[in-house]
Amino acid sequence: MNDLLLRACRREAVERPPVWMMRQAGRYLPEYRKVRERADFLTMVGTPELAVEVTLQPVDILGVDAAIIFSDILVVPQAMGMRLSVDDSTGPRFHQPLRTPAEFAGLRPLVPEEGLGYVLEAIRLARRELEDRVPLIGFAGAPWTLASYMIEGGGSKNFALAKRLLVEDPGRAHGLLSRLAKAVGTFLKAQVAAGAQAVQLFDSWAGSLAPSDYERSVRPWSARVLADLPVPSIHFGVGTGELLTSMRDAGGDAIGVDWRVPLDRAWERIGADRAIQGNLDPSVCVASWDAVERAATEVLGRAEMRDGHVFNLGHGVLPYTPVENLQRLVDLVHERTAR
Amino acid sequence: MNDLLLRACRREAVERPPVWMMRQAGRYLPEYRKVRERADFLTMVGTPELAVEVTLQPVDILGVDAAIIFSDILVVPQAMGMRLSVDDSTGPRFHQPLRTPAEFAGLRPLVPEEGLGYVLEAIRLARRELEDRVPLIGFAGAPWTLASYMIEGGGSKNFALAKRLLVEDPGRAHGLLSRLAKAVGTFLKAQVAAGAQAVQLFDSWAGSLAPSDYERSVRPWSARVLADLPVPSIHFGVGTGELLTSMRDAGGDAIGVDWRVPLDRAWERIGADRAIQGNLDPSVCVASWDAVERAATEVLGRAEMRDGHVFNLGHGVLPYTPVENLQRLVDLVHERTAR
Repeated sequence: MNDLLLRACRREAVERPPVWMMRQAGRYLPEYRKVRERADFLTMVGTPELAVEVTLQPVDILGVDAAIIFSDILVVPQAMGMRLSVDDSTGPRFHQPLRTPAEFAGLRPLVPEEGLGYVLEAIRLARRELEDRVPLIGFAGAPWTLASYMIEGGGSKNFALAKRLLVEDPGRAHGLLSRLAKAVGTFLKAQVAAGAQAVQLFDSWAGSLAPSDYERSVRPWSARVLADLPVPSIHFGVGTGELLTSMRDAGGDAIGVDWRVPLDRAWERIGADRAIQGNLDPSVCVASWDAVERAATEVLGRAEMRDGHVFNLGHGVLPYTPVENLQRLVDLVHERTAR
Repeated sequence: MNDLLLRACRREAVERPPVWMMRQAGRYLPEYRKVRERADFLTMVGTPELAVEVTLQPVDILGVDAAIIFSDILVVPQAMGMRLSVDDSTGPRFHQPLRTPAEFAGLRPLVPEEGLGYVLEAIRLARRELEDRVPLIGFAGAPWTLASYMIEGGGSKNFALAKRLLVEDPGRAHGLLSRLAKAVGTFLKAQVAAGAQAVQLFDSWAGSLAPSDYERSVRPWSARVLADLPVPSIHFGVGTGELLTSMRDAGGDAIGVDWRVPLDRAWERIGADRAIQGNLDPSVCVASWDAVERAATEVLGRAEMRDGHVFNLGHGVLPYTPVENLQRLVDLVHERTAR
């Protein structure tokens, strides 16, 4: 089996760094859009056969070194009782965001095998179909990022409602984060039991916070999730230049870093005893191949072939990215770095 | 005259740091909303009497130490020939974003006295009405931020089109940035001639870039704008933790910093020979007074009463901020820091 990802996360010697891409199963692929024509996004997520079909597409089409199960971080709050819609243009929306104490109290505890059995089934099925070609990554949203969506009702420019709860009513905020930490931890372990060989914790909105707020109110709950996972874990955020040391302290075998921090500078903050994942700007992948090549070469140069680098974008693949750019990018990482 | 802002920007000794707030003339004020009922946003911007009325409101209502002329950074591309609409819910939109070479070539050079005479008139009128109570700040958008809006057509989550131009066709990108640098530099000098006593350059979207792209393609044009201004200048961006040293190199007597970087750490990167402006999270100002007080006290603590600190938010005041929170915030900065 190609276990480069697992070895890189553990900072073991590798012939070359593994490469995969966040949202590598996505709308930029004609093969994905074909599945999407037959089913809406949440149906795809909720139907193991469809989820597995698109999970495997980038392994075949791009030649990446890992698959990530096709799903969405918001399935956790959905399984805790919140009604979710996902619209192509406006993104995900909860019909009834958390506002009143009763709404907070009304969340159901998560029993992954019941509420999220379809994700676990997709993982089992994907493992069978992958036949150990590459490792399968499971994932979940981190407590703060999930709480932000649940309070705001969807994406937000400034997360003012979620931050307000955090600074104004820490008791209620921590009650919610604690329940989410428990749910997410349980869910990740269930994914591992179903066959996930690594997991990624997406704290996509950690970077919206002042460092002191992150450290006081968010880090402890991410730490709880990451504390005793039986497989390599990747701890990811966006705009987290000032939080990298704190995120490392929270846990994760590899720390994800976006393109705003040069990879070598990020690694200094994370420390040599952790792996790093990143950090090509996904917007660059929309441009000409020359531009992609130049930016990817810079990332590889800054990684200096050190063990423990997982090549990835700094955030998800954009829908209008040319497939050929990503195919050539995978080839470039494979060729440039062969020892 | 209360010239604390001007002295702080020059790092001269001050009795206490000046405090003002970005978007302090805005929808959170009932008095502003009353003007807004009679005129839409662009009419307010384009009518000196209305612009001056709302410019002065926060000086009277909050007691801030500076006024900033009420306007919008997008008046520059508008005066260069681009049709602009501003909608309360969706934000600013250009009807015809720059896409084709002809559209790039079709931009008119800016003659501030002709295209933006209404801003200059508003500045003259505001100075008369302020009667030297506090300094008046003029402003403009930085070349990269303006170019992003002009290419994307409005706000954007990832600025993929603008970045694409930057990395794929540097020649055309630099042609646009060069024209904008010239326009913005001319405009800021015209504002100073009309009476602006300090200026702020808003590079709001600099933080979307990888540092190497900023340094190669953006910094030179901001440097050109900031090179020979006859009054104190503030160089502002959001999410710029990794760019602070580069932004300082580009210029500005004071460097703006958002809440993602602790103020003392930001000042280390900027260097002791520059002033700093920031850095309270505007989302916190929506919460209870206790939360605002705690966060403001942290900012003041990190500034350690050093000369050269301009107290401000890290970005603009949010529309649903309680006025009383900002009044108390100004009082707190005034009281805590009196020598």
